[in-house]
Amino acid sequence: MASINEALEIIRRGTEEILLEEDLIARLKTGKPLRVKAGFDPTAPDLHLGHTVLLNKMYQLQELGHEILFLIGDFTGMIGDPSGKNETRPPLTREQVDENAATYRKQVFKVLNPDKTQVMFNSEWMNKLSAADLIKLASTHTVARMLERDDFNKRYTSGQPIAIHEFLYPLLQGYDSVAMRADIELGGTDQKFNLLMGRELQKSMGQKPQTVITLPLLVGLDGVKKMSKSLGNYIGIDESARDMFGKVMSISDQTMWLYFELISFRTLDEIKQFKKEVEEGLNPRDIKFRLAQEIVERFHGKEEAVRAQENFVAQFQKGVLPEDMPEIKLTVGDSGMQIANVIKSAGLTSSTSEAIRMLDQGAVKVDGEKITEREFIMHSGKNFIMQVGKRRFAKVFLI
Amino acid sequence: MASINEALEIIRRGTEEILLEEDLIARLKTGKPLRVKAGFDPTAPDLHLGHTVLLNKMYQLQELGHEILFLIGDFTGMIGDPSGKNETRPPLTREQVDENAATYRKQVFKVLNPDKTQVMFNSEWMNKLSAADLIKLASTHTVARMLERDDFNKRYTSGQPIAIHEFLYPLLQGYDSVAMRADIELGGTDQKFNLLMGRELQKSMGQKPQTVITLPLLVGLDGVKKMSKSLGNYIGIDESARDMFGKVMSISDQTMWLYFELISFRTLDEIKQFKKEVEEGLNPRDIKFRLAQEIVERFHGKEEAVRAQENFVAQFQKGVLPEDMPEIKLTVGDSGMQIANVIKSAGLTSSTSEAIRMLDQGAVKVDGEKITEREFIMHSGKNFIMQVGKRRFAKVFLI
Repeated sequence: MASINEALEIIRRGTEEILLEEDLIARLKTGKPLRVKAGFDPTAPDLHLGHTVLLNKMYQLQELGHEILFLIGDFTGMIGDPSGKNETRPPLTREQVDENAATYRKQVFKVLNPDKTQVMFNSEWMNKLSAADLIKLASTHTVARMLERDDFNKRYTSGQPIAIHEFLYPLLQGYDSVAMRADIELGGTDQKFNLLMGRELQKSMGQKPQTVITLPLLVGLDGVKKMSKSLGNYIGIDESARDMFGKVMSISDQTMWLYFELISFRTLDEIKQFKKEVEEGLNPRDIKFRLAQEIVERFHGKEEAVRAQENFVAQFQKGVLPEDMPEIKLTVGDSGMQIANVIKSAGLTSSTSEAIRMLDQGAVKVDGEKITEREFIMHSGKNFIMQVGKRRFAKVFLI
Repeated sequence: MASINEALEIIRRGTEEILLEEDLIARLKTGKPLRVKAGFDPTAPDLHLGHTVLLNKMYQLQELGHEILFLIGDFTGMIGDPSGKNETRPPLTREQVDENAATYRKQVFKVLNPDKTQVMFNSEWMNKLSAADLIKLASTHTVARMLERDDFNKRYTSGQPIAIHEFLYPLLQGYDSVAMRADIELGGTDQKFNLLMGRELQKSMGQKPQTVITLPLLVGLDGVKKMSKSLGNYIGIDESARDMFGKVMSISDQTMWLYFELISFRTLDEIKQFKKEVEEGLNPRDIKFRLAQEIVERFHGKEEAVRAQENFVAQFQKGVLPEDMPEIKLTVGDSGMQIANVIKSAGLTSSTSEAIRMLDQGAVKVDGEKITEREFIMHSGKNFIMQVGKRRFAKVFLI
């Protein structure tokens, strides 16, 4: 059993904020297992490394002996987006929710220990809530308080509509904490407002307010934008060992240190040691190997991780790819950029007309694949190795 | 049976707005009895003439053959004011609601025909509403739309708190119209926003939106502020025939014409005729007698009304009161005014010290009652006859 100071150091690592830390310490001092809540959408889960920042923290708390309450917010999911404005959020059926929950379990139990994890559905208590109960809940907070939430504030001041039920959702999320008697709630920094609602509602209902722990959002492979499916700059936890390995190897050295802090289980002392090695002349690529190894091993086991690295190294040894390539970041905006412009902007040709000629000649490869289509549009969030002719290479990040 | 034009003329009389009149005409053309909704609070009713503006319109519609749905909003009443900010609105029990409903019936059936009135309670459908149903309802409108409502807007911009459940109440009131399948909803001008919610929700739920008819607020005896219990400028429909008669006689000639339009059942032609008589030299007091007669008769019967007038006239014939008194309006603000200042400001003495002397001598009467207390505070909303010494009289209105 870790001492309180050891536990605190583990909990603190990589967090953005702990509110309030003195509460947390008091709770740890009781020596009782704490009830740790983390909520997830009931939509089809397709988790990526970004989600594991949270899952890892849950795992760490689990290893420290606490009770992990994995909450699936199926109640609002089964309502869907009733305003009808969001077509991607039709109401889910019970069957869909259960199916998604099963997929969730499969994915999160790659990180969490299933025996120490309690999966809960908030429909269990929300379905018992009457309109009158919800009115009482709504009476506990003011419109002005809701409009303090960053995104609401931006939408309100810029004249974008906010449907009234959106004001109810933070309250419902807070009510989950009451129903679950949560001691701790974990969430991304973008969830801070909602997590604090839990504190406020618990307090008003006579419970000790939960400790709120927020975690930063993981940046994507481009090192700039947050990792997300829609931006394409992600590593899915269901991806093959080979793809996963290659993607980790594609991040910049700077991004590597962020990933070490947030998604590796290496101790802070080890990481410090790695940094020292680099300062003393070790190629950062070798440290990145260790990160890629650890991550691939977590999702595919030791053997696959070793094989992935061998494969990766073989590519370079075959001389297919140079070891040092310029890293180019290009801002392409929402509409993307035509490939000839990307080639030219990456400095791989001196003009777009030359780029077009190279395309016509079949001399352009993206991640080893030949592209000949002149009108090919490339979108932000992608990163890849671009080759023009025999010798010109660049690692390109589209932002 | 009245023709559509006759019906329209009756319906239009004294209304502030009809939205939309063409819908109303279309509805009248069907020849079917229309479902006319009017909602009332479930709090202890103590109706005054101000409320009869609405009740009279309901009566007129009833006489035109339509179905009157007298709705008691017991659902929200039984929740009370959950924010706890309003101590005057504790939740009501079922027994209290039923008791209040009985008192309501007794009072409103002095105007409405009980055989043609359906009393409804919105808890009937609201108690069946789940939190999920309420969320769906809340999703139909935006925060910005709610903040368009005058009072919300004022409170929001001036930094006064608005609890979130207050945004739900207009929606619930609108949902009543859906549940009741209302063709028409009646309400005061201050209810317009909520009445329009009914239209919007009916439309979104596939019903033909109700016709909204708003009625102006009746001014009180002072002729300036709206009639209200708390301002004291009211005639309660449970008051004695004598008090009622005297109070009607105390209103100004100008206010009299407003009362004729809004609370008398005299036809517009008759009222026009009365105005002509006054122009031709008739003392307006005699026209006021007709108004007082009609109103007292409605609540106490013909015999009592005649007796009340005889009593009133006798007072003047006994020479107790002069027929013509100056009418003085004084603005006294929220904290009221000491009686000596009232006497002086009404011009009944030339100084406050003289007023104090008269008080000390027992020479001051308010509505015939001797007042000797120097510190006596008089509050806004009151109107009374003040007498100082033998000959100095004034009709005083405190605003």
